[in-house]
Amino acid sequence: MNDKTAHPGHFYAVGIGPGASDLLTLRAVRLIESADIILSPQAAGANRSLALAAIEPYLDAQQVETVNYQMKRDGQSTSERWNAVAGDVLDWCGASKSVVMITIGDPLIFATTSYLLQGLEAGMAKENIHVVPGISAFQIAASRFHDPLTLQEDRLQLMSATDINAVEAALDSCETLVLYKAAGVIDDLLALLRRKDLLRSARLVSCVEQGGGERVVADLSDFDPQGLSYMTTMIIHCGRRSWLEQGG
Amino acid sequence: MNDKTAHPGHFYAVGIGPGASDLLTLRAVRLIESADIILSPQAAGANRSLALAAIEPYLDAQQVETVNYQMKRDGQSTSERWNAVAGDVLDWCGASKSVVMITIGDPLIFATTSYLLQGLEAGMAKENIHVVPGISAFQIAASRFHDPLTLQEDRLQLMSATDINAVEAALDSCETLVLYKAAGVIDDLLALLRRKDLLRSARLVSCVEQGGGERVVADLSDFDPQGLSYMTTMIIHCGRRSWLEQGG
Repeated sequence: MNDKTAHPGHFYAVGIGPGASDLLTLRAVRLIESADIILSPQAAGANRSLALAAIEPYLDAQQVETVNYQMKRDGQSTSERWNAVAGDVLDWCGASKSVVMITIGDPLIFATTSYLLQGLEAGMAKENIHVVPGISAFQIAASRFHDPLTLQEDRLQLMSATDINAVEAALDSCETLVLYKAAGVIDDLLALLRRKDLLRSARLVSCVEQGGGERVVADLSDFDPQGLSYMTTMIIHCGRRSWLEQGG
Repeated sequence: MNDKTAHPGHFYAVGIGPGASDLLTLRAVRLIESADIILSPQAAGANRSLALAAIEPYLDAQQVETVNYQMKRDGQSTSERWNAVAGDVLDWCGASKSVVMITIGDPLIFATTSYLLQGLEAGMAKENIHVVPGISAFQIAASRFHDPLTLQEDRLQLMSATDINAVEAALDSCETLVLYKAAGVIDDLLALLRRKDLLRSARLVSCVEQGGGERVVADLSDFDPQGLSYMTTMIIHCGRRSWLEQGG
């Protein structure tokens, strides 16, 4: 896909990066600028749309539709909500509108946009659906510390921090572990890292490149988790795995 | 960091994405446009610099320095080469030049730029060193298939395919496995996937968004690996892991 502008009747899931307006790709900007309709997701309870603020410099005459959704860990209501949105998208595309759904980060990495894509595949030609990647939270987090996420034979693992037993198992099966949603279980995480003697190898960021409230912590030895934002990412360096001997 | 232009005496490791000129972020473009010196890596044996082709629209009066290096799995010669480059960068920055090192993909994900960053940390103030993330190969690969890389409690793992035993172990400890450098061990990989009944769940891309030679394979059941490019990424969907019961 080398489309420069949004085509009539096509749908684009566009990753817009962590929140700063200059961390979009040029392709994302051109699609947003040329779309008829922009879908902007907004979780219930959020006091502003981070995604909409990020693309504000690129808005002009586009029709902006806010997609409200509940942050519930419930498969049934989640798919009902997104199937309803998919219905709207199919109607708009059927009427030859171009539709861009913006997503903070990347549309395929822990993103609600994935549900919408599943809902669209049934009713729309696959070649009229496009996904444009965006910079994900773990990449902007890592960029603050300058440490490689992976080199040589290292394994990098990304997961939600929600299941602390799965997190403990992961520490033994990768060299770099990235945890999303670390805030909700931060006390358990800190206890686990202390027990594994990994507090000094664990880094944490919140709200990076989101226009305020940024927190960047390079060592969790003396970390006070009070007031931690929901949008917290942790990077744990468990080790390094160098090149194997040739033929070894 | 919200620098719009490259500052004198500062170094920037800038990810430029997979190869297409419109998959750079705006921040990357502005830094490249305003830099005094651009470092462009070129592996020995490559017939052209993919990175330099990607940024060609943004070049004007900048001094472009090609950094040749051997693709050798040898820690000693690798760090000697990059320490020499670090010496040049320290001299340039000491003379108040702004220096941008461009990297295909992201500078911290399987990138030689990581060696240069390690070499610079010893001789330069950390606040004068900046890393700008870029779209990584696995993201553009996934975007072609529209499948989520991770949702809910899924674990995503990225690694080199070189060590086939480690690959086999990884199939049991994540829901989505991304393998870089899949071409060199493709026969072993296909045999492993056949044995695990995962050929239909494995996808492969080569040279995506690199101006030619693109190969996108959504199902490896009948795949013929002949002539596969070095720049091949495989995505294996091993399963899905849904939300846990609340409090469960």
